Amino acid sequence: MNPSANLSAHRVVVESVQPEVDGGRFPVKRIVGDIVSVEADLFTDGHDQIACRLLYRRAEDSAWQEVVMSSIGNDRWRGEFPVLQTGEYRFTVEGWVDHFLTWRYDLVKRLQARQDVGVELLIGAQLAESAEQRALPEDGPRLRVYANELRKTDDVEHRSAVAVDGEIALTVHRYPDRRYSTRYEKELAITVDREKARFSTWYEVFPRSCADEPGRHGTFRDCETWLPYIDSMGFDVLYLPPIHPIGATYRKGKNNAVAAAPDDVGSPWAIGSEEGGHKSIHPALGTFADFERLVQSAAKLGIEVALDIAIQCTPDHPYVRDHPEWFRHRPDGTIQYAENPPKKYQDIYPIDFETPDWQALWEELKSIFEFWIDRGVKIFRVDNPHTKAFPFWEWVILELKQKDPEVLFLAEAFTRPKVMHRLAKVGFSQSYTYFTWRNTKSEITEYFEEMERSKVREFFRPNLWPNTPDILPEFLQMGGRPAFLIRLTLAATLGSNYGIYGPAFELCESAPRNLGSEEYLDSEKYQIRNRDREDTSSLKQFIVRVNRIRRENPALQSDERLTFHETSNPMLLCYSKATRDHSNVILVAVNLDSAHTHSGWVTLDLEALGIAGNDSFQVHDLITDSRFVWKGSKNYVELAPGSSPSCILRLRRRIHTEKEFDYYL
Amino acid sequence: MNPSANLSAHRVVVESVQPEVDGGRFPVKRIVGDIVSVEADLFTDGHDQIACRLLYRRAEDSAWQEVVMSSIGNDRWRGEFPVLQTGEYRFTVEGWVDHFLTWRYDLVKRLQARQDVGVELLIGAQLAESAEQRALPEDGPRLRVYANELRKTDDVEHRSAVAVDGEIALTVHRYPDRRYSTRYEKELAITVDREKARFSTWYEVFPRSCADEPGRHGTFRDCETWLPYIDSMGFDVLYLPPIHPIGATYRKGKNNAVAAAPDDVGSPWAIGSEEGGHKSIHPALGTFADFERLVQSAAKLGIEVALDIAIQCTPDHPYVRDHPEWFRHRPDGTIQYAENPPKKYQDIYPIDFETPDWQALWEELKSIFEFWIDRGVKIFRVDNPHTKAFPFWEWVILELKQKDPEVLFLAEAFTRPKVMHRLAKVGFSQSYTYFTWRNTKSEITEYFEEMERSKVREFFRPNLWPNTPDILPEFLQMGGRPAFLIRLTLAATLGSNYGIYGPAFELCESAPRNLGSEEYLDSEKYQIRNRDREDTSSLKQFIVRVNRIRRENPALQSDERLTFHETSNPMLLCYSKATRDHSNVILVAVNLDSAHTHSGWVTLDLEALGIAGNDSFQVHDLITDSRFVWKGSKNYVELAPGSSPSCILRLRRRIHTEKEFDYYL
Repeated sequence: MNPSANLSAHRVVVESVQPEVDGGRFPVKRIVGDIVSVEADLFTDGHDQIACRLLYRRAEDSAWQEVVMSSIGNDRWRGEFPVLQTGEYRFTVEGWVDHFLTWRYDLVKRLQARQDVGVELLIGAQLAESAEQRALPEDGPRLRVYANELRKTDDVEHRSAVAVDGEIALTVHRYPDRRYSTRYEKELAITVDREKARFSTWYEVFPRSCADEPGRHGTFRDCETWLPYIDSMGFDVLYLPPIHPIGATYRKGKNNAVAAAPDDVGSPWAIGSEEGGHKSIHPALGTFADFERLVQSAAKLGIEVALDIAIQCTPDHPYVRDHPEWFRHRPDGTIQYAENPPKKYQDIYPIDFETPDWQALWEELKSIFEFWIDRGVKIFRVDNPHTKAFPFWEWVILELKQKDPEVLFLAEAFTRPKVMHRLAKVGFSQSYTYFTWRNTKSEITEYFEEMERSKVREFFRPNLWPNTPDILPEFLQMGGRPAFLIRLTLAATLGSNYGIYGPAFELCESAPRNLGSEEYLDSEKYQIRNRDREDTSSLKQFIVRVNRIRRENPALQSDERLTFHETSNPMLLCYSKATRDHSNVILVAVNLDSAHTHSGWVTLDLEALGIAGNDSFQVHDLITDSRFVWKGSKNYVELAPGSSPSCILRLRRRIHTEKEFDYYL
Repeated sequence: MNPSANLSAHRVVVESVQPEVDGGRFPVKRIVGDIVSVEADLFTDGHDQIACRLLYRRAEDSAWQEVVMSSIGNDRWRGEFPVLQTGEYRFTVEGWVDHFLTWRYDLVKRLQARQDVGVELLIGAQLAESAEQRALPEDGPRLRVYANELRKTDDVEHRSAVAVDGEIALTVHRYPDRRYSTRYEKELAITVDREKARFSTWYEVFPRSCADEPGRHGTFRDCETWLPYIDSMGFDVLYLPPIHPIGATYRKGKNNAVAAAPDDVGSPWAIGSEEGGHKSIHPALGTFADFERLVQSAAKLGIEVALDIAIQCTPDHPYVRDHPEWFRHRPDGTIQYAENPPKKYQDIYPIDFETPDWQALWEELKSIFEFWIDRGVKIFRVDNPHTKAFPFWEWVILELKQKDPEVLFLAEAFTRPKVMHRLAKVGFSQSYTYFTWRNTKSEITEYFEEMERSKVREFFRPNLWPNTPDILPEFLQMGGRPAFLIRLTLAATLGSNYGIYGPAFELCESAPRNLGSEEYLDSEKYQIRNRDREDTSSLKQFIVRVNRIRRENPALQSDERLTFHETSNPMLLCYSKATRDHSNVILVAVNLDSAHTHSGWVTLDLEALGIAGNDSFQVHDLITDSRFVWKGSKNYVELAPGSSPSCILRLRRRIHTEKEFDYYL
């Protein structure tokens, strides 16, 4: 027993606080401007009334702000507060037995039962006098008057009326006795990111393939000429594979050939040469000035440049010479190259995170991010973060965000689910997902519903990619142009964050290196590609439209309130997204079969759409600009892959009826 | 960064450890002899192999014991350990990157791919030499020989065979390099109770009603004469309402009359008079010697006496005189009596847990339990624990169990679910439940399935009561004898802990004080009752049989593996319980309608019963001793409330077939 505190008097219990990730071990993620809704179980012994407050503050502030929590039944309470700045917030919950509230609640019942309340009124006077001690000077006199009224010996009737007066009660209630309040034992953390963390549209392109003339190595200057094209399609993040000098030792040739030909350009992920490492630019791409110009030109169009950070080195990387202790050494004196036996990647030396020199290593790796942040980059796509020690990520992301809370990190981790979730917990702002391989109705529904159910959304923000330079999925290899339309629609409407690897995507490139492989034939990872981005078969116009729909419809700018609706045909997928107030509701229907027309009935969850029972409503197909009137939950859909395998419908509740005409009245 | 530890090298993540209550804030509960199964997510970055151990100890020990955890897929690991003594245990989980395991795993793949493994064998030698440093003296030489073999320059073939030898690998594996292991940040607690906490059969009786002659105040000696009767029915806990002196001030009369007649005996829960308080015995019941004799006589029959501890005082209680500061005082100088406005309970003064003298109060209340523990009582039924401060319970139960881990506490709390759960979390061994009011198929199924789903069973042990002196449920008021048979069967087979308030129950007393009330008419709470417990209409023989079935069938001695099975008739409820190894499986079918015969088909979940697809199996009705052969999942049931509204079937998988006869062979 702690004799200094009255443990016995702290009678309120606070438990089951939500949101909370792993018992408070990790922060939840929110976006600046969000309203954070907090729930908790609070109760006390016996019948006394309790009062509950939600306490919150920015991590760097010492003072809490408070909001009143309200009971929502079954001993659960809810409160809300806005997060108005990026950075770290803290919150917790506090409750106490409120003797004044209890007194007043009971007094009303006593009066209704016509009991003698003489002594009760004296108790009320004591409570008001106690509140007066805590009150601001402007409220003190009122409380004093109130207490005095309750103490008058005559006219119990009048004093009772005074006692239950609502306005003065509010004043007393403002100054509760919190000596014995219970505060939740944990302070929970929130990472507040800028809007881009929730809503972003990515375009990945290899600058070296941006030259106009076939064969020439593209540069940042060439890439700059692509900006209007990328902008016109509606992308707001331009993601560049690593831009550093490429190693020569064990360089891979075209199509991942073990030996490179003399003119082979190598893989951008084979980082480091005599010309430098992670803080250098591959000379063939241009200068720092060129890079900064690209960043600035993009910014003028509202496009952010995202850099790829791949923490690995070729044998030619300066680190190998300057910091051999950061790599694992073999008994024969060589450095351990990357392997996944029996596969060998002799062009790559992984960093040994078990190095005794880990502090210098961590600082150096952090300085890579800082180096590019100083050159205007605020978004990093991190290559294979799951092959680097988790404690490093937790440290470096926190350090970098403390300096600049605008910085965002996308985890490129196609690995086991718990590993991906851990990366998100330790700080990654967005994450690649298994969407790339989820094609059927049940696969898609289960995957996205499971994310909802398991509450991973509290910390895990999916970024959906229908293709990447590493992955040409079989569905795209086999389905032709309709397959690309289907996957683009799904990515852009299931995920508020999505991206494509272009121009391979919009030009519907579908040839794999060989049958059964997900590698692109003549992959840009190993060679320069020149394509006519204005090819008439391009999906550009479709992408323009879909991305405009995303910009114009807030429902698609968040992953909240995603609902799947039943359909009578297993090839038809139907889902909706809605804003919190249902002022914007988007319903998407997709024919998942790239080869055949499908039709069927969708059974809408009208509540999720914010539509009352049997109302008629207009659905406006934002792709074709056609409009239909639907009614109730059952409605017919038919989608032909040849023309438009999907429809993105905006619901408009307003339907004109005869009642609007004068002669009806 | 902490420079003293290599944070970077601690690459294994440990998370989602189960069982864990409220993030480790409270212990889970187990029974001595249980195997505790622990699961956790463990993984590391990259492709390295990891090893995981489960660490456990008794709370008072400092050294951990360890068991190896095994992977069960999806980065989840499982380990088990037995809890062999009552008291507190601790456990946690540890994992590390196992470089030897990784090396050996990769070596096998390299050899299969016929790669040159010369350098790999040298790495293996280094790992073996490192293990030698950690090895026990008896294993050192073997590891040295192994390392030397791997270092030989000739005959790589032979060295490879040596390298992958399983036996020596096991030896190396016994001495892992755990410098960089990760231990789960929490030590989780387990409260290990004796068997009675899980399996107990309670009989509540008022000793003052135990006299043979009508009108005489019964004594402990009279109660002793009931022991053979209680024992014959198979009860093993004899629970007595408070046995202390009863107050005179504001004493209630028969049927809760506001004013008592001169000869009214008062309520045993109105504790305290000039003759003493919670450490005294009501003189009319006998002496301490009589009480101790009752406890000992009961013990000889395997029956434990449980006492009711009601922390509240009449105005006559010695505490009121000696410790007025433990009560709340009103401005008029009076002590606050119990109220639930507009109801007043002037005969009861509640304790004020907000008293500044709380430490003396807590110590005194603890000493009440200690007083009766010293007189042989090890089970306490606590009256209305939810009206006393939770921090007190958490403290007092821990204190008492640290002194004597055999002590058990039953929480009498018919209140809100979260309050009941909190009481279980802070230490109560068993809890009253809403079973008393759950009558229909959906009510019962949902209530028990929810307990399973929400994992409250980790800390909450239900004790099912079809009636109590406070509650004569409407179902019993209206359903006659079949209703009592139904509720007894349900309580005794749905709950491994159950109890009845007798002899009101077995004599099927069903008259309420008035219509719509759940109070008994002429309740024993306020008067002495004399009944003929050997009345021929008594359910005694049925209770004898049901309790014998409980004793003979381990499946009914635990609440684990309770499964509800579909039935075609909403009045038919069907469920099963099974031991972990399915050596004992009990299937119960109950007709919930006390008025009509019902029949229908049950669709059995054969997997839960441990029965393979289409096998025939015998079901043996342990009530009627009749046997049937059932086959597959669909089987017919018909139950008549007049004869037997339920059947308790033991499954016997062994069915004789023609193949056993000689002439078949």
